[in-house]
Amino acid sequence: MDAVNKVINEDLQKERDKCKFNVAELTAFLDGGDKFTQKRREKENRVFSIQGLRDAVPDEYMSHKERYENAVRKAVIMHQTLGTLEDKTLTEYETARLALRATTSSAIFKENSPLMLHYSMFANVIEGQGDEKQREYWLKKINNMEIIGTYAQTELGHGTFIRGLETTAEYDPKTEEFVLNSPKLTAYKWWPGGLAHTANHCVVMAHTYSQGKSCGIQPFMVQIRDLETNMPMKGVKLGEIGAKLGFNTVNNGFLGFENHRIPRDRMLMKNSQILKDGTFISSPNSKLTYGTMVYIRVSILGTMANTLGRAVTIATRYAAVRRQSQPKPNEPEPQILDYVTQQHKLFIGIASSHAYYISCFWLWTLYHRVTKELAVGNMDNLAELHALACCLKATTSADAAVLVERCRLACGGHGYMLSSNLPQIYANVTAANTYEGENTVMLLQTARALVKAGMQVAQGQKVSPSMAYLADQSKMAKWDSSVDGIVKGFQKVAAGKVAACLASLQRHTNNGQSAEDAWNLTSVQLVAASEAHARVILLSVFKSEMDVQTLTLSGETRTVLFQLVQLYTIYWALEKVGDLLLPTTTTTYSVSICDTAMRCDGWMDETSLFEKSTIQTSARTGIAGLVLSGLVYDSAVYPELVHQSLTSWPLQ
Amino acid sequence: MDAVNKVINEDLQKERDKCKFNVAELTAFLDGGDKFTQKRREKENRVFSIQGLRDAVPDEYMSHKERYENAVRKAVIMHQTLGTLEDKTLTEYETARLALRATTSSAIFKENSPLMLHYSMFANVIEGQGDEKQREYWLKKINNMEIIGTYAQTELGHGTFIRGLETTAEYDPKTEEFVLNSPKLTAYKWWPGGLAHTANHCVVMAHTYSQGKSCGIQPFMVQIRDLETNMPMKGVKLGEIGAKLGFNTVNNGFLGFENHRIPRDRMLMKNSQILKDGTFISSPNSKLTYGTMVYIRVSILGTMANTLGRAVTIATRYAAVRRQSQPKPNEPEPQILDYVTQQHKLFIGIASSHAYYISCFWLWTLYHRVTKELAVGNMDNLAELHALACCLKATTSADAAVLVERCRLACGGHGYMLSSNLPQIYANVTAANTYEGENTVMLLQTARALVKAGMQVAQGQKVSPSMAYLADQSKMAKWDSSVDGIVKGFQKVAAGKVAACLASLQRHTNNGQSAEDAWNLTSVQLVAASEAHARVILLSVFKSEMDVQTLTLSGETRTVLFQLVQLYTIYWALEKVGDLLLPTTTTTYSVSICDTAMRCDGWMDETSLFEKSTIQTSARTGIAGLVLSGLVYDSAVYPELVHQSLTSWPLQ
Repeated sequence: MDAVNKVINEDLQKERDKCKFNVAELTAFLDGGDKFTQKRREKENRVFSIQGLRDAVPDEYMSHKERYENAVRKAVIMHQTLGTLEDKTLTEYETARLALRATTSSAIFKENSPLMLHYSMFANVIEGQGDEKQREYWLKKINNMEIIGTYAQTELGHGTFIRGLETTAEYDPKTEEFVLNSPKLTAYKWWPGGLAHTANHCVVMAHTYSQGKSCGIQPFMVQIRDLETNMPMKGVKLGEIGAKLGFNTVNNGFLGFENHRIPRDRMLMKNSQILKDGTFISSPNSKLTYGTMVYIRVSILGTMANTLGRAVTIATRYAAVRRQSQPKPNEPEPQILDYVTQQHKLFIGIASSHAYYISCFWLWTLYHRVTKELAVGNMDNLAELHALACCLKATTSADAAVLVERCRLACGGHGYMLSSNLPQIYANVTAANTYEGENTVMLLQTARALVKAGMQVAQGQKVSPSMAYLADQSKMAKWDSSVDGIVKGFQKVAAGKVAACLASLQRHTNNGQSAEDAWNLTSVQLVAASEAHARVILLSVFKSEMDVQTLTLSGETRTVLFQLVQLYTIYWALEKVGDLLLPTTTTTYSVSICDTAMRCDGWMDETSLFEKSTIQTSARTGIAGLVLSGLVYDSAVYPELVHQSLTSWPLQ
Repeated sequence: MDAVNKVINEDLQKERDKCKFNVAELTAFLDGGDKFTQKRREKENRVFSIQGLRDAVPDEYMSHKERYENAVRKAVIMHQTLGTLEDKTLTEYETARLALRATTSSAIFKENSPLMLHYSMFANVIEGQGDEKQREYWLKKINNMEIIGTYAQTELGHGTFIRGLETTAEYDPKTEEFVLNSPKLTAYKWWPGGLAHTANHCVVMAHTYSQGKSCGIQPFMVQIRDLETNMPMKGVKLGEIGAKLGFNTVNNGFLGFENHRIPRDRMLMKNSQILKDGTFISSPNSKLTYGTMVYIRVSILGTMANTLGRAVTIATRYAAVRRQSQPKPNEPEPQILDYVTQQHKLFIGIASSHAYYISCFWLWTLYHRVTKELAVGNMDNLAELHALACCLKATTSADAAVLVERCRLACGGHGYMLSSNLPQIYANVTAANTYEGENTVMLLQTARALVKAGMQVAQGQKVSPSMAYLADQSKMAKWDSSVDGIVKGFQKVAAGKVAACLASLQRHTNNGQSAEDAWNLTSVQLVAASEAHARVILLSVFKSEMDVQTLTLSGETRTVLFQLVQLYTIYWALEKVGDLLLPTTTTTYSVSICDTAMRCDGWMDETSLFEKSTIQTSARTGIAGLVLSGLVYDSAVYPELVHQSLTSWPLQ
């Protein structure tokens, strides 16, 4: 954070001087407008000016306990600084837009805040599932920090499969109470952030019974600790789950119940209710609770964009200042950024970060539309939104983890040091592969929608807009290396994979397999089809949104942004060259892409495509400039490059 | 380590009962014979019976300093237990063979021992580069622990590029001393294990000058700390480089010199010498020092096999005991090992671990042959060995890191917990991507040899055995899905990529680029060609060595081992389907693989290939049995599965 006062490394300064586009223009574009950039910086300046938020000793030298205590200390300061800061000049929509680019917290907590769940899931679930009286009562307490809460769904033995949750809540009409129990060890709640030592309240998802009958999984507000002593309440068993790859300061815990009783009004009753006499009134539509889950997946796209952006900024700066080897005698060692292999590792990370921002805002807009539709009872587009959020969450988080790790490795041994912050960034980003819906499960959810759409297409029915390309029976006579041509190729690939899955499912059921076993036997291909669909969406949205959104930008800025679009598209064409080529050599896809006669005739020339991808080289200044000019991340915010061991390490 | 006394999880026991092959037979096969299994277990039992080697508090809860102190404590016990244990019943060759399967240390130190470098590089370099007198003098002190040492080559600003090292050693004939200096911050030695607080001696690589002339990079034995006080010697600046992703207990340090003087005889003089008057006598062959470097890369293959084996053992056991979801109503939740997507993630890890063992022992045999040849002045096969070691080190370490991470992610959230030990295993394995030769640099070194061989082939000259396939001009008329057929396909791919590189280098030089710039512009393809060559070696060696070495094994054991060969081969055919298909659609490769007329006609049917890969399913019991039966790792050795937070977690 002292970086701004330091001498800038000469190589870094030279790179910045080469930048041809207007940095402020591009920053505003990414933030959503000058107003948002200003608001973001106001908040950042406010936080970063507080001396108490700086670590005297870096976290990594402390014990597990000390790290937590340090995080609590900073969380309290953060709350005092920002907690009551409600910006009346912004609409709710604008506040949410701003939040998708907010990274202040990640600059303060390398492994996140112990209050993370209090501000997010705990508040959200009461907002979304509490009735009016409950919302009013609890949200006030939450905002005032009278209580600290978390959200407990996952159990030691149960993750994705919600119906399998074993925690029970049985209604006792005599006392008008619910009795909570964890009948087995595998029923213990496991993972909630803040649960280990921080939270005193918790929303608990439990299998609910009344009048001897199951009422499904319902949410309950439970006080788990005494507000004075912080000791567990009677019949509540609590603790920490232990050290993890990352998120250590999030204070994840476990929670079990032994005949713990809570009043009837602690069940969140916006959707389903249990009346005093035990009568169960089920939710008019169980899908109404999808909202929060989908929103979190949308926000994960933003997190991936931000996190990958940080990693690739660090790695590109390092590549600019690090000099190594001497290919030409009597010349100085080159900046490693001048090695094409280095550019090949880094530039796709820059392009991907931008692709994820664009996709995030696109999906977020759709989310808003669908939320409004839901409010008036229209659920037409909910399935589409759900299918998109699942496969995009999985694909961007998987790719981002690979790309962050590539950035880390591109810094050689220095990337292995925690002072680069790259290992901690990886720990954060890889967690998104398993949290909020494990990626393989996510892809299989979208696959269900694709299979359904594939069958509808076969019957001539209309399908949702994002899957409409499945119905396109036109052939690609010639390979087209333009961005639109490659997107078209990916559509054919995805359509081919969906058709192959349908054929495989059919084959297995014809062979006497049950539908479930046929699904399992086809599941590797189903995952691949789902990923292919996500590629279609990411590539086409990046291109079409850029076309529309950059119209008012200057030519220089548009140029570099479209270099990113081109790089991203060609990169994936080369990565998936087998998928693009396969339909030219086999007839197993029921969607045939090109005529047999065309197959041999220069369908795709990898060499020429690769040469095109050396826009990487010709656009080195522009693309590297995106991060070297302080973009994506303001340099003041990211002190990771300052080597903690040697204060005079020659980086800015 | 208490695992053997615990009740075995029911699902795990069922899996083990299903195993059809003789576990002891396969263990002996991997160890290299019953004798080695027995020796290995003797050592393991000796170490694991020592109570003091168990951590009362797991490392991850301690501060950085406490972790180091705990590691020193255990290193001392380990030395007392094993340090003087020289097994006279084994030859030197047998001792080395045993070492390649040794994992005892990794069970005691999650992040390795602070004496790691003392036992390995420090001793090795004196063995390899000290003259007779030096070897006798120093090795005795090393074995008796009279001194503790490390090896310092890499500098803060200089890694792979040895000529760029900035530490200087200038000979002063007046006092018959060398004067060591670190002229700049970037000249500081950086990374040596044990250097931070443990070592009192160090072999330092320094740019050497005598009589005003450069004498190249030479090794020096330097006392860096006082043996009584452990304080740095005069003119020696020392410290710790800081926390890292892993290897934290290795105690990596930095080292700088300010006019530090050492006697002339501290230069290790087996190869080059500087006489009393300052006369420099250069080594008869600079390649003689390659030995240690190559040996370490050979041993990395073994480390990758061991480390991946541990990860996939943990993940497969987890998949056997974890039950999730309910595809069929009224049936219990299945073991997640029964999901084909899970098998797809794990089984390739089992196959790869075995492929790396086999490749390691094959390469090690070649290393021994070449070492013997070198001893009599024959350097014919040194370049071949070097090229093989470089690309195999890079490819196996890169693949192993991806596969370990896949294992970790396949355990969902539980893989994110340090109690699974998977994050720590990943930290160990990913380090191999950058240590002992950064992977991209390694692949480019092999690429140099491939380009040279490609040119020799074009001129009708003979090339080294491992590259002989480059000269094979025969066409593949039909795709052949057998293992040998796929290996043949990979040979065509590698040959095609080498030819494409030659064409690209030519094109760039024709366009007026210098040779160095043409190399840089082709470097991404050169890396790909080098990796393709490594695939040829890994696939063909796995198959051919298994053919030969398993002849005396029982049918059941051979069956499951050949399932691994087939799985490994088909997996890579599917991963690289684009490479295998490209030659059918373009004529840019100068090695044309098949006739045009053949190209369209069912060249490769991915679906049928995929169906073949579902040997995964039919061979589930056998392949999973490889690790579930306690193979690859004896269950007593790996206590990772015992969840530290909940002792009754239902795993063995």
